[in-house]
Amino acid sequence: MQLVREPGGTRIGERIRALLLDPGHSELAPRTEMLLFAAARAQLVDEVIRPALAEGAVVVCDRYVDASLAYQGVGRRLGISIVRSVNDIGTGGLVPDLTVLLDIDPEVGLERARRDAGPAGGERWGGGDRLERETVAFHRRVREGFLTLAGNEPRRIRVVDARASVQDVHRAIWDLVAGFLRGE
Amino acid sequence: MQLVREPGGTRIGERIRALLLDPGHSELAPRTEMLLFAAARAQLVDEVIRPALAEGAVVVCDRYVDASLAYQGVGRRLGISIVRSVNDIGTGGLVPDLTVLLDIDPEVGLERARRDAGPAGGERWGGGDRLERETVAFHRRVREGFLTLAGNEPRRIRVVDARASVQDVHRAIWDLVAGFLRGE
Repeated sequence: MQLVREPGGTRIGERIRALLLDPGHSELAPRTEMLLFAAARAQLVDEVIRPALAEGAVVVCDRYVDASLAYQGVGRRLGISIVRSVNDIGTGGLVPDLTVLLDIDPEVGLERARRDAGPAGGERWGGGDRLERETVAFHRRVREGFLTLAGNEPRRIRVVDARASVQDVHRAIWDLVAGFLRGE
Repeated sequence: MQLVREPGGTRIGERIRALLLDPGHSELAPRTEMLLFAAARAQLVDEVIRPALAEGAVVVCDRYVDASLAYQGVGRRLGISIVRSVNDIGTGGLVPDLTVLLDIDPEVGLERARRDAGPAGGERWGGGDRLERETVAFHRRVREGFLTLAGNEPRRIRVVDARASVQDVHRAIWDLVAGFLRGE
């Protein structure tokens, strides 16, 4: 079993990520943002995920194409279909067997992110990265986008209520993954 | 009339370009490369070209979608159709009215690039950027790609023989542009 993080998983992904999350890049166009996320993901698939799958590993990845469909397709209003087309080309059509969606109200989620930045949270948080700084209305659209995707593919995308405690969320995810690996 | 260079035309394009041309990035996957060029171009269209067109400017741009079709579609063998799909999404379908293709044998072209680096050429050239360092076979495929595109769209893409002197090439380009602006 192998744990893969994205896009920190590749050197090129890191450089793309730095560019994407820089709060100074207020001029970044939605289509540019979408193509940059797709580029970082294409590199991750080519350099890390496909080689791992070829070795028979189970690959666990925190965010994949669905995140772009929700953030850029719905949040940025580019439309799900064009974001899907670009990402299908970038990944060569690689789709996860199982996707776990941790669902929470955006205001609660952003408050948690601030709190988890620790005692010196204000400093580390610094208002968040370029996406975290978006309006609550944006984050609400993204959440609706994720839930729409889950509604369209209920077998692949499983929703976990993230308001629960860390222990309960952990258990719910583990039950889903273990069940999937047993072929349920 | 307005002169626009790409992707140096935008701050974000510069960062993407630095990443793309870094000779140290030998692991860059062809699909990542294609998506990064499309991202730089999407930003240029959004930030520079569309606003200029909206003001009634004539926009002159050195390299656009056809370069990706030839370099990534044919040179990297990704196929012209997927590269066109991604770029159509990135540019919102913006196509030039007139494209001038400066055609030359790759060995002659690369030799010129080396020589034009000046007396301290070896140093400034340094072996060229990541694309210039590609094999002659790669550059031959790219040239064939460009000529195929020109053959498919003979009215939009006009071929100029770049073996001629700077003065003659300049005159040939000017005749094409002036003719186009007169509606010929």
